[in-house]
Amino acid sequence: MSDSSPNTGRIYTAALIVIGDEILSGRTQDKNIAQVGTWLGLQGIRLREVRVVPDVTEAIAEAVNTLRARHDYLFTTGGIGPTHDDITVDAIAVAFGVGVTVHPEARAILEGYYESRGGLTEMRLRMARVPEGADLIPNRYTGAPGIRIGNVFIMAGVPAITAGMLDALSGALEGGAPLLSETVGCWCQESEVAQLLADTEQAHPGCQIGSYPFWRDGRSGANFVIRSTDAEELAACSRDLASALEAMGKPATPGGI
Amino acid sequence: MSDSSPNTGRIYTAALIVIGDEILSGRTQDKNIAQVGTWLGLQGIRLREVRVVPDVTEAIAEAVNTLRARHDYLFTTGGIGPTHDDITVDAIAVAFGVGVTVHPEARAILEGYYESRGGLTEMRLRMARVPEGADLIPNRYTGAPGIRIGNVFIMAGVPAITAGMLDALSGALEGGAPLLSETVGCWCQESEVAQLLADTEQAHPGCQIGSYPFWRDGRSGANFVIRSTDAEELAACSRDLASALEAMGKPATPGGI
Repeated sequence: MSDSSPNTGRIYTAALIVIGDEILSGRTQDKNIAQVGTWLGLQGIRLREVRVVPDVTEAIAEAVNTLRARHDYLFTTGGIGPTHDDITVDAIAVAFGVGVTVHPEARAILEGYYESRGGLTEMRLRMARVPEGADLIPNRYTGAPGIRIGNVFIMAGVPAITAGMLDALSGALEGGAPLLSETVGCWCQESEVAQLLADTEQAHPGCQIGSYPFWRDGRSGANFVIRSTDAEELAACSRDLASALEAMGKPATPGGI
Repeated sequence: MSDSSPNTGRIYTAALIVIGDEILSGRTQDKNIAQVGTWLGLQGIRLREVRVVPDVTEAIAEAVNTLRARHDYLFTTGGIGPTHDDITVDAIAVAFGVGVTVHPEARAILEGYYESRGGLTEMRLRMARVPEGADLIPNRYTGAPGIRIGNVFIMAGVPAITAGMLDALSGALEGGAPLLSETVGCWCQESEVAQLLADTEQAHPGCQIGSYPFWRDGRSGANFVIRSTDAEELAACSRDLASALEAMGKPATPGGI
């Protein structure tokens, strides 16, 4: 994998921390890794590492401090609700070595949201707490905002709410050239064409080819995903791969199967 | 979260490394975290940390060496196929500081599997390569075995094949008392009952209560998951939580909504 971009000379990278015992126990199927990875790609930022950690302060703080130093951006999902097991804000304050404070704007948002819903109780006010020095990320669904501190973006765990927060951040973060991709599908075993894939990748510097096999309707198939920041190189590599597959008697399906 | 188990005095922990650019790019929705987490729970082993890393040798090796030292068991998924982007075996050999060798039993398995499928080519033989000193994990679907070296279990990325490998390992790993769980559902906003949840958890040492809100059919609800290694404590905590919810006028649904 090359770390240079022909268009900007700079690759922007991000990490994600998924916080929650329910993901680790297998009770809840995570959907935020794919969602955040896809969204980051559109911003010209590469998701380079994900960690899933339990609802334990030290585990969260350690992951935050390692990953915020290593990447341009760090996102977290989960643990910012009103209940006792929501400890993300406190853990990130520990990581930054700052206190926790009630953000006046967040308090006003929650007062408005809960005015017709039984009022702002002490537990609900927990959702207005932020690490000192933090800004808010709007949440158009349930009021309770996400939080930005430094290069760390603290988001909800419920995927629909996370999506709204990502939407609010769209276009706001500096990124590089987006990694473009094309998919070529083929009803073949990947092992039959493995050498061809390696040769084709090598013939097209700046392109990577990933091979993703599947078994469907009683037949082996694979999708080959070509990635590059250069649209022309990408098109040439995809074209050459399809031709080479055809030449082996393996019809290629543009766009994938 | 308590780290002592009343039944065994010892908690067994595991980590998982999900290897693959396709998970990070968002192209593929991971299913192995939930699958491995659930399976480990049944073995009496807690999944404590997951990392998703790209197809980069150094990233894989670093995660392997950190996590195999920190936990009783380490699992990896992905990157053990026949194509050029399958580098897991080589990266784990680097992590262990050993060479890579063709395992004679794996070679024999693949020779049998490919006898009627075009023969064992050089690229297919890649799937018989293991770090020196490793054993095999049976794969009843496509022949190509998983690999065990020390406390590291190297498995396929395709979820159905991973499932077969986990099945082959069932009951083979030493674990502690399984973490039991019960779910109580409630059509309420979690913020309405947050204090009650905290108080109930505090009244039942050895129990943790997780709160997982949702929005369905135009209504707010939440499932409260109580976890403990002690069946009696678990039942008492679940019963008390349901009673307390009922007393607030919030009917509880045993088993969750």
